Amino acid sequence: MASTSNDSLPISIHNINPKVLECEYAVRGEIVALAQRMEKELLINPGSHAFDEILYCNIGNPHSLGQQPITFFREVLALCEHPSLLERNEIKGLFSEDAIKRASQILKQIPGKATGAYSHSQGIKELRDAIAEGIKARDDFPADPNDIFLTNGASPAVHLVMQLLISTEKDGILCPIPQYPLYSASIALHGGTLVPYYLDEASGWGLEISELKKQLESAKSKGISVRALVVINPGNPTGQVLTKENQEQIVKFCKQEGLVLLADEVYQANIYVPDKKFHSFKKISRSMGYGEKDISLVSFQSVSKGYYGECGKRGGYMEITGFSADVREQIYKVASVNLCSNISGQILASLVMNPPKVGDHIYESYCAERDGILSSLARRAKRLEAAFNSLENVTCNKAEGAMYLFPCIKLPEKAIKAAEEADTTPDTFYCRQLLNATGVVVVPGSGFGQVAGTWHFRCTVLPPENKIPDVVSRLTDFHKAFMNEYRD
Amino acid sequence: MASTSNDSLPISIHNINPKVLECEYAVRGEIVALAQRMEKELLINPGSHAFDEILYCNIGNPHSLGQQPITFFREVLALCEHPSLLERNEIKGLFSEDAIKRASQILKQIPGKATGAYSHSQGIKELRDAIAEGIKARDDFPADPNDIFLTNGASPAVHLVMQLLISTEKDGILCPIPQYPLYSASIALHGGTLVPYYLDEASGWGLEISELKKQLESAKSKGISVRALVVINPGNPTGQVLTKENQEQIVKFCKQEGLVLLADEVYQANIYVPDKKFHSFKKISRSMGYGEKDISLVSFQSVSKGYYGECGKRGGYMEITGFSADVREQIYKVASVNLCSNISGQILASLVMNPPKVGDHIYESYCAERDGILSSLARRAKRLEAAFNSLENVTCNKAEGAMYLFPCIKLPEKAIKAAEEADTTPDTFYCRQLLNATGVVVVPGSGFGQVAGTWHFRCTVLPPENKIPDVVSRLTDFHKAFMNEYRD
Repeated sequence: MASTSNDSLPISIHNINPKVLECEYAVRGEIVALAQRMEKELLINPGSHAFDEILYCNIGNPHSLGQQPITFFREVLALCEHPSLLERNEIKGLFSEDAIKRASQILKQIPGKATGAYSHSQGIKELRDAIAEGIKARDDFPADPNDIFLTNGASPAVHLVMQLLISTEKDGILCPIPQYPLYSASIALHGGTLVPYYLDEASGWGLEISELKKQLESAKSKGISVRALVVINPGNPTGQVLTKENQEQIVKFCKQEGLVLLADEVYQANIYVPDKKFHSFKKISRSMGYGEKDISLVSFQSVSKGYYGECGKRGGYMEITGFSADVREQIYKVASVNLCSNISGQILASLVMNPPKVGDHIYESYCAERDGILSSLARRAKRLEAAFNSLENVTCNKAEGAMYLFPCIKLPEKAIKAAEEADTTPDTFYCRQLLNATGVVVVPGSGFGQVAGTWHFRCTVLPPENKIPDVVSRLTDFHKAFMNEYRD
Repeated sequence: MASTSNDSLPISIHNINPKVLECEYAVRGEIVALAQRMEKELLINPGSHAFDEILYCNIGNPHSLGQQPITFFREVLALCEHPSLLERNEIKGLFSEDAIKRASQILKQIPGKATGAYSHSQGIKELRDAIAEGIKARDDFPADPNDIFLTNGASPAVHLVMQLLISTEKDGILCPIPQYPLYSASIALHGGTLVPYYLDEASGWGLEISELKKQLESAKSKGISVRALVVINPGNPTGQVLTKENQEQIVKFCKQEGLVLLADEVYQANIYVPDKKFHSFKKISRSMGYGEKDISLVSFQSVSKGYYGECGKRGGYMEITGFSADVREQIYKVASVNLCSNISGQILASLVMNPPKVGDHIYESYCAERDGILSSLARRAKRLEAAFNSLENVTCNKAEGAMYLFPCIKLPEKAIKAAEEADTTPDTFYCRQLLNATGVVVVPGSGFGQVAGTWHFRCTVLPPENKIPDVVSRLTDFHKAFMNEYRD
């Protein structure tokens, strides 16, 4: 149990690293802590709230809301966890032929089938080969397994790169606003400066080069040396998908300004509109004729998102291109300090990037599972988008990709005043009231950043499809009541 | 592939974070890189070296050298990877009854059996309950699941604590010399100062309080504010096990001096001598009557070591006691930024701390596997210890615990000169020659720190038992030849 008296203890809030104090992470912040308390209360004392259950729309955590794993992936993982199963005949009725084949193949690549051993610091070479093949199939440009660093999800990869790029508070990182708060948290923890660039809500969260230029110049004038540009595509929390032309402009901008392009591409499989397609920044760069010596690029990918949504596996990788050999040695050294990422996550990353193919027995059922999840996500996104747009004073951009909507609420003056009296921001005030009244958990826009004076929240599209009508009606009823109470 | 020309790229070795440059990690350093190259050469061109295979004695990675996983643990993990197996009758012939029972129990504790979901930032509550129970059974003092933070192995836990404690280079951390280089690397990455205290080789790597006091005073006189004391017990790389009396002195010292005690207890299951027993620092503190308000203590544990040796799973935890509620909130926040550790690692940590018990069907076979591994490790340690002590100019302390020996070699002047000419340290020179001649990979003492003018290397006790005679004869022959060449 936590001690309440600080006096006798050597560590207090006043003498810990101030960078830790500065760091914020709203996705698991105040509102979520409140929701967890309420969930416990509901368990101990059913009927203690106006609803039966908490509906978590705060975090991109699909399996926690009932999404099922892709069978093939889990079959392979189970066999790799317990390789001696492969010597037993009985497994033929329990596992698909393709999973047995793939697991055997993977285990053959690991000396002694030792999934319990530390691997190479970048991850098992043959799994990186499979990922490189997957990247090539995706981009139509080659990928090198030596460029791939497997990590425990994308978050530690982002930290590693920030650690490399940030020496002092004079090192700046251009980040979109709104942004996924991993970036602001990581920049704060490493003592750098977040240089914000604002996405244009009016043009569907467009990324304007003029805005990038303006913010870069402004940072430079303050003595900030801007090292890198973060782009999240598909967008989090904003859900937009960049056009190819826009991506080309971004690549050109980075090349011109000498910025490392940090491409958060973890939602690459989550696109819900037929007129948009995912293009990796590497593909865009190579299509423009930019090679290793022209642009420094890090692409982050994760097994937690997409149709797989395997958040609990903590698998992911970064692909690093356009870095000199000596800098790469430093990256390798830092990766080595943590020895390697977890092997199940490594295996899953290779499966996600190299899934069943035409001709595999399992191909059809795999596609059915994949497409079932993706089309359901698309329907849920549309349904929620429409619901938000039907509310008074709420506008919501098109849900093109990722797992989120980021509606804008024009809050009445009276609500803003009430928030002030409650000593909180207006969007947090709204989200807290929403939670108290309905059990729906969303994250206030201030956790992601927003244009001053505008208010948003992030809502995932992940509640099970049969619960979406309930989410919509809870949200709608609450919003009406809220507006009635606070309308100017 | 890495670019060779730096000129056109924005990031070079000259403008990255200097803390990254300072960090070193010899366990996967120069000698190991050389070994990996030689391994590739042997594969492409057998006979290209004087030996058939590389024998990795550089790293505590038991499964990579043939140690088999504990069957029960892997059965449970496989079932948790693919929960729908539990609905199939056929599994009864494939998995033990106890594994089916334990997996069902664990999955019941995870809403929707969703092992693919992010968990609570500290890890799944019920798994922490099981760990707390295991700690209680070990220590005979209660443990609180809220004190436990599950992590991807012990390394990220150490980083998290260093991040919390270190603000500037004026923050010092007392570390043993020799030490496991995770500590020096983490302190360097976070920009703090390593305050060394020397273990006394002559008294079996004894930890003298007078030495701690001396180094603490010396650091203070340089304006360093010492925040914490790292103790590794059983020792890495030194293999000693602290006595209870010595642990009591250490606890008292930390209490008196206002230091956080960082207890690396990852080798708690690796003890090879009948007269020594593992005592956790929490047990020692509580036995002394020190509670939450008296001492701030972090205990690190990992699934990578012990008889389980599941390095690839990246499971571990830290137990944090004696921290105020507001500081714990900060630790929780930083843990939240990375969402959670991998669920398989979490499950395995709960199994390791709460293994089969008397009365379980599987108990006997589990014990046989466990004791088989531990007694073999003890035999290997003894055999290597004796071998080192039989060599000219080599002395080696008793292998009481952990997985390592850290023999001291009195190198002849001629060898020291030759090292100088080869532009390397004498111990690295010796280890490189050893590798070149025999394929045996050990880590030079300079990677861990050693008293100036003394030379050591760390050798794991992990090669398979049937290969130990070969390791011994390769080492012995090499050493004789080396001494003959360089004897003064």
